[in-house]
Amino acid sequence: MRLATFRGRDDESHVRRVGLVLGQGDHVRVHPFDAGFDLVELLAESAEWRDSQADVAAAGDGLALDEILLLPPVYPVAMRDFLTFEAHVDGMERGHGSPGVPDAWYDAPVFLFMAPHAVTGPYDDVAMPPDTERLDFELEVAAIVVRDVSDVTPQEARSAIGGYCVMNDWSARDVQGKEMSLKLGPSKGKDFATTIGPWVVTPDELEDCRDADGFLDLKMSVKVNGVEVGTDRSGNMGWSFEQLVSHASRASWVKAGEVLASGTCSTGSLAESWGRNGSLTPPPLQVGDVVEMTIERLGTIRNTVGPREESVAPVAPARRRSRLEASA
Amino acid sequence: MRLATFRGRDDESHVRRVGLVLGQGDHVRVHPFDAGFDLVELLAESAEWRDSQADVAAAGDGLALDEILLLPPVYPVAMRDFLTFEAHVDGMERGHGSPGVPDAWYDAPVFLFMAPHAVTGPYDDVAMPPDTERLDFELEVAAIVVRDVSDVTPQEARSAIGGYCVMNDWSARDVQGKEMSLKLGPSKGKDFATTIGPWVVTPDELEDCRDADGFLDLKMSVKVNGVEVGTDRSGNMGWSFEQLVSHASRASWVKAGEVLASGTCSTGSLAESWGRNGSLTPPPLQVGDVVEMTIERLGTIRNTVGPREESVAPVAPARRRSRLEASA
Repeated sequence: MRLATFRGRDDESHVRRVGLVLGQGDHVRVHPFDAGFDLVELLAESAEWRDSQADVAAAGDGLALDEILLLPPVYPVAMRDFLTFEAHVDGMERGHGSPGVPDAWYDAPVFLFMAPHAVTGPYDDVAMPPDTERLDFELEVAAIVVRDVSDVTPQEARSAIGGYCVMNDWSARDVQGKEMSLKLGPSKGKDFATTIGPWVVTPDELEDCRDADGFLDLKMSVKVNGVEVGTDRSGNMGWSFEQLVSHASRASWVKAGEVLASGTCSTGSLAESWGRNGSLTPPPLQVGDVVEMTIERLGTIRNTVGPREESVAPVAPARRRSRLEASA
Repeated sequence: MRLATFRGRDDESHVRRVGLVLGQGDHVRVHPFDAGFDLVELLAESAEWRDSQADVAAAGDGLALDEILLLPPVYPVAMRDFLTFEAHVDGMERGHGSPGVPDAWYDAPVFLFMAPHAVTGPYDDVAMPPDTERLDFELEVAAIVVRDVSDVTPQEARSAIGGYCVMNDWSARDVQGKEMSLKLGPSKGKDFATTIGPWVVTPDELEDCRDADGFLDLKMSVKVNGVEVGTDRSGNMGWSFEQLVSHASRASWVKAGEVLASGTCSTGSLAESWGRNGSLTPPPLQVGDVVEMTIERLGTIRNTVGPREESVAPVAPARRRSRLEASA
């Protein structure tokens, strides 16, 4: 089952609706569920109950994509980004002058908590953020968590994953690089936009895409202005999503409404190429560029880089402690 | 005004209540507001309205601290930890063999998003997390955000801060150190517990504690087993909380229910001493150790390190891509 979150294109009330997605390509239609349905709650219900509700939705008229505005499928209670693609780590490390993948990478899947308030819809424009000359994208698979879990095994984690979608973790590389020199990871370099969508596909639709170890193995690709610049397979993740949930839940919590992302696949960002090439080739994104990401079975998200918007001034530099000590 | 979140010590319903804190030391009493009040909403209201509700609460019977269980004042929609104390950065950098504070630190206040689901109450035991032999604490001031803001100046940010409390950002240094070698910051090294409390103090109570630049200047100290091991002043932050909110909101959002923390003050963690001393002196926390943090005007949180609890097994090491390439 494919489930989208949307509102009417001319709906001034901005009420969010959930819809069943039927058809392919130009024939996609979104069939609204009754108002009041929440996507995460719907995914947490039994397949039988969800099917019965979907039958009702399917019997009604469907809406064409040009009649509606697709929204982010979920507004996450938290988002985590993992680092699961070995070849991406290798490329990024070489860009930093390191010999390749650090030994620690193999031991356990590290993650960071992302800015949770910056999700954007699958076809929304993304404004050029302030302070950057090196805007980049990151092609990732994302899983939607629909149950609260703590200390679960990978087997137990399976029922906590309600579905999957495509994710673009937009990144201002120059801002991020400077921030990461302080060792806490990126902050403003990644907090302006994260695109998820176009809708959520439930795991039962993807059972035939699992490999012998149970890893989802889906073709992933990204185009800039219609030209393919990266491609990989989700089967190249070092850990399965069930393992990621288990790890995150160890002596802690993973909660319903969280989004857990794979991290960037190999060649799924410009920065990895910059690292390998030793130059800004292909060039950083510019206003007007169109970034299109497709994952087999999950669909396509497509976003245009919009003009820079007006922002408040940057904060002043740090007040120095030496000033205080000198006056003491 | 001081506002606490609590439940009755023997209340099986686990209903959260908000209470007005009156009195000092052994004479503290918590006067419940009517059921249904939410602490963040209460802090977002006008001072006049809040005062009128507090008058009603104060007229009722107060509860002694041994009759109730103080809970985390808020269950945050997101938590950010900044890095604002220059001398702490200096100590930590020296521990990593660096010459001192990197130039980039002075330019803008970096932050990370913390695990939002692991907040614990001000007097709760904190279980020794798995996989660590180097448990540590971090003494910080935290601000509670009570309005959604985007692109606000420091002046505009002022009304978005509803109050302040003490925070202990518990840290497993060995786990964290290994994770941080992957450059994304800590993940499992800090996701097991963050203590906030004992209550929230509104900004109007602290106006006389602002210095000439408007920075809150409060004495901070931490004891382990009754012995003071660290002390600093919040006036040594490189940026004010209003500046932190402004920076975080630039081309993004800071939302009601977020907690923004100062980062560790100087000598507010064992790791900084380990860096300066070149040895594990003072020693890492052990089961049974009591960590007590006090910030002038904000109060004291006190937590005992509890025994390690049973956890699921760690996930398997990464599946290697070379395996796939060899078989291709």
